[in-house]
Amino acid sequence: MTDLSDLVETPETEREPRADAVSHARAATAVADVPHMKWWGWGVPGVGFHFEDKPAFAPFVAKAVGLDLHAVAPLDPPRFDGVDVPPGRDDGRVRSAAAAVVGDAAVTDDAMDRVVHTYGKSLRDLVRVRAGVLPRTPDLVVYPGTEDEVQALVTALVAEDAVIIPFGGGSNIAGSLEPDPAESRVVVSVDLGRLDRLIDIDEASGLARIQAGALGPVLEAQLNERGWTIGHFPDSFTHSTLGGWVATRSSGMQSDKYGDIADIARGMRVARPGGLLDVRPYPSASTGPSVRELILGSEGRLGVITEVTVQVHRVPAKRVIHAYFFPNWSAGLAAMQALAASDVHPTVTRVSDARETGFSLATAKESKGLSALAQRGLMAFLKRRGWDLDELCLSFIGYEGEPDHVGRQRKAVERIVKQHGGIGVGTGPGVLYDQKKFDTPYLRDFLLDRGTAGDVSETAAPWSRLRPVYDRTIAAAEAAYASLGRQGWIMCHLSHSYHAGACLYFTFAFVFGDDPVAEYDVVKTAVQQAFADEGGSLSHHHGVGLEHAAWMPDAVSAEGVGVLRGLFAATDPGGNLNPTKIVR
Amino acid sequence: MTDLSDLVETPETEREPRADAVSHARAATAVADVPHMKWWGWGVPGVGFHFEDKPAFAPFVAKAVGLDLHAVAPLDPPRFDGVDVPPGRDDGRVRSAAAAVVGDAAVTDDAMDRVVHTYGKSLRDLVRVRAGVLPRTPDLVVYPGTEDEVQALVTALVAEDAVIIPFGGGSNIAGSLEPDPAESRVVVSVDLGRLDRLIDIDEASGLARIQAGALGPVLEAQLNERGWTIGHFPDSFTHSTLGGWVATRSSGMQSDKYGDIADIARGMRVARPGGLLDVRPYPSASTGPSVRELILGSEGRLGVITEVTVQVHRVPAKRVIHAYFFPNWSAGLAAMQALAASDVHPTVTRVSDARETGFSLATAKESKGLSALAQRGLMAFLKRRGWDLDELCLSFIGYEGEPDHVGRQRKAVERIVKQHGGIGVGTGPGVLYDQKKFDTPYLRDFLLDRGTAGDVSETAAPWSRLRPVYDRTIAAAEAAYASLGRQGWIMCHLSHSYHAGACLYFTFAFVFGDDPVAEYDVVKTAVQQAFADEGGSLSHHHGVGLEHAAWMPDAVSAEGVGVLRGLFAATDPGGNLNPTKIVR
Repeated sequence: MTDLSDLVETPETEREPRADAVSHARAATAVADVPHMKWWGWGVPGVGFHFEDKPAFAPFVAKAVGLDLHAVAPLDPPRFDGVDVPPGRDDGRVRSAAAAVVGDAAVTDDAMDRVVHTYGKSLRDLVRVRAGVLPRTPDLVVYPGTEDEVQALVTALVAEDAVIIPFGGGSNIAGSLEPDPAESRVVVSVDLGRLDRLIDIDEASGLARIQAGALGPVLEAQLNERGWTIGHFPDSFTHSTLGGWVATRSSGMQSDKYGDIADIARGMRVARPGGLLDVRPYPSASTGPSVRELILGSEGRLGVITEVTVQVHRVPAKRVIHAYFFPNWSAGLAAMQALAASDVHPTVTRVSDARETGFSLATAKESKGLSALAQRGLMAFLKRRGWDLDELCLSFIGYEGEPDHVGRQRKAVERIVKQHGGIGVGTGPGVLYDQKKFDTPYLRDFLLDRGTAGDVSETAAPWSRLRPVYDRTIAAAEAAYASLGRQGWIMCHLSHSYHAGACLYFTFAFVFGDDPVAEYDVVKTAVQQAFADEGGSLSHHHGVGLEHAAWMPDAVSAEGVGVLRGLFAATDPGGNLNPTKIVR
Repeated sequence: MTDLSDLVETPETEREPRADAVSHARAATAVADVPHMKWWGWGVPGVGFHFEDKPAFAPFVAKAVGLDLHAVAPLDPPRFDGVDVPPGRDDGRVRSAAAAVVGDAAVTDDAMDRVVHTYGKSLRDLVRVRAGVLPRTPDLVVYPGTEDEVQALVTALVAEDAVIIPFGGGSNIAGSLEPDPAESRVVVSVDLGRLDRLIDIDEASGLARIQAGALGPVLEAQLNERGWTIGHFPDSFTHSTLGGWVATRSSGMQSDKYGDIADIARGMRVARPGGLLDVRPYPSASTGPSVRELILGSEGRLGVITEVTVQVHRVPAKRVIHAYFFPNWSAGLAAMQALAASDVHPTVTRVSDARETGFSLATAKESKGLSALAQRGLMAFLKRRGWDLDELCLSFIGYEGEPDHVGRQRKAVERIVKQHGGIGVGTGPGVLYDQKKFDTPYLRDFLLDRGTAGDVSETAAPWSRLRPVYDRTIAAAEAAYASLGRQGWIMCHLSHSYHAGACLYFTFAFVFGDDPVAEYDVVKTAVQQAFADEGGSLSHHHGVGLEHAAWMPDAVSAEGVGVLRGLFAATDPGGNLNPTKIVR
């Protein structure tokens, strides 16, 4: 098959961000060594997206959102000394109470630290933090070093009637981290970054006890060392933590094989004002309303997750991602549905719509990119076969296991791909998909530096509703752009297949005017409402936070919202645990 | 391979109990047509276990529990006219309120109806109901015919401060149905039996909306008619309902493929005092603490389940169960563990310990049973191979799907079976396993008629804990028998495999003295405590009820119990919804 190895490269980064995190795997983690992302953007300082070697990128952006990359001068990185950080509100009492537990060096009211812990990394967050919009920051940031410290801290802070917001990697994009602007009590961000150890592997059971503050690469490196993998690789993997995954019901790219974090996380320990909540890790159980599933997605409202027992798997003998082209979106969707209904179990199923396929082609590098490909004649070949290249849809399907299992699965998948008019284009693009999959969020800062908003919304819906959800979402975004008088872009892929449906993941972008957040709200609201109107969930794996809370009644009805409100009121009567999130 | 077709026949019944239930599939279900089990025992009146054609059974029972079946005269079936049913406590107000919703004909205070709705079918329940021990029965039984009626009924009953206990098939063995003896308010059993319809199938998504009161055979027949199956076949299948499965987190025999009911049930509708709670059926979602998983296992404490949207599958092209022998229990356990860690996906994995294997051999019929088998020389062959036949363990492994998929899966499984010293013995036993799997509970009444107690306890534990759980449970039961001065029996099988562990299902029996319930408590408590002490769940698929509530702190810690207590207090402040169950 043709080598398309650079065809779908996701944005390149200047250096590898994972190495830095991995270095913490074994050393005792000091407060100073807890890694944080840029205060004003995604990822590691010094790393960013650039397009100079991607000849198709600038024309693509010009066409998509009307932005001339060669004409616009990017903003300089924001300077922290220009940011007006409001003073902390603690009169010293909460600080003393926290320091009595964790020691003085693990409590700070440093302005930069407080700003880093104010927001996640949504478009709304980045716009505000870059503009110095900080109506409320945490008053203190605390770095407990042990589970006992977390428990004592929670007890002490609630005794002082402080507000507790747990903080993992800070990659949240649903508004789960920000303090309520109206909050008059002392707000404390509890950073779990020092709790980053693999405690133990039960090798017979494939269960690993891991501290909640471990970043993806940190925990995966510790598992890999012993021949194991968690199999959970969300886009945020490099900068998100196990506790954060559990708190927001995260899902990783190989969820078709390994499950969502809701399947992977079997046991968990949570520091609550009354004491440590400990859900024992059973493979399954019929023990009443599931306390395990109450903690999953709880976003800090039930306490601070300190440790999770997760399913782990032997690193598979073989792991490969193949790329396929489908003649159009309908064919791609139908093929994914047929795969889900079959006896086949690939580990990754993903197909991009024509727009996202165009985006992927446009981010290929010059050396081995689209032009090289065109020379090799694949596109001409497809055209001769009668394909409309503007409708072309790129798909990735992953396989893992023993080599003969992988071979058999691939053969069975490719029979179904063929039945739906698809064509295999080899492993080249898949290798790159794999290497670069965690770097896409850097592109958002690149665009923001150039006056352009970009963000994502994703949903899960039954197979029968995917096309209606897709069509209405595209139409809703376009209507929103029209109402703003903006030229906008929206693209989509299907990923995470289940028996009954799949996830649709939308990315949207537009050049904004004077009030980017207000304009973003118009687009984001239109997209989310389209999901709800056509039977899609408010999110598949990004959580609720503040951003998606308005659609909770669509998901679980007003009565279901009432049940959750009752739960939080009963288990956190003082409203100390990340109040206002999920349901007010 | 040798035909062992009658080797592991489960107890024979005199007529087929499923036909009766299936006949309700299409007709509009009238109050009088809601099927109930015997008031004093399991299953359909007139159906029972007998052993006359099973020559090995009486010697087996004599050896196991010291009971001479030929010497003991069975009790006659209990007579209802000797039962002293306490009068209902309603002064007419609650009856009027209920009748205003469902009509007069759908409300009853009939003594038999009240007794039928007092208990489930645990050993404790059967002993009490046969002895006329009825400290508290429901005062009224109501049969709503529509979801609207259920909702209006719940609202009206709570307005009258009545207690509501939802009732499905009445097969519960965890004490989830009985009214609190200390309850002074009017207790109403809400029987869902008229809500037994398949509403709709979303064929593209493999999702079916089904009313909660549908019995297993009733809903399966409606699905089969259109080419679909729910794939959920608990032992109680014939006499349990979809709503009951959800309310107790049930698991079926093919759970390795189809999942537990917690996986199968995607959406649900629940009548609550405040209105209808409606969880939309998504394939997956990150919408905060899962309201879906709150309803699962809620045993009526959050309201009355009226409808469930379940995953359904096309009836597979091929479905087969093969039997295997292992030389001993350790080899059987190790083989199941190796299967779970492999790339293979059988639909059923099950292995009996040597005792349960002995029981299965003893329930074979004369005509084609053990003696015939012995003649055919398999046992002699195994003996020549060096097997200790007293250690022999029988295993069932099931396969489903397209024929070539089934063939490949079986080949891969049998490689692993062979690696663990196992040997295939064909499909004969599997066919019988399949036909008779729902009839085992009849045996309990047969024993009870002869002064012998029998019941079951099951647990789920990580692979590493299965052997410790097993060993301690056997030892604990034997110590309990010794303390009672009884000759007792306990046997076990592994079933329901997961990545991280499996279910161990224990059956125990003993000849009791003057106080069977007190003696049963000694044994049952010892078994449950052994589970908890070695890391097993309090139940894998029977629920909590009253029977297992004492072990909730072991499962989710005292703090987790507090969270559930808070949940129930907040969402049912009057304590009207099946109070005292799960956590007091």
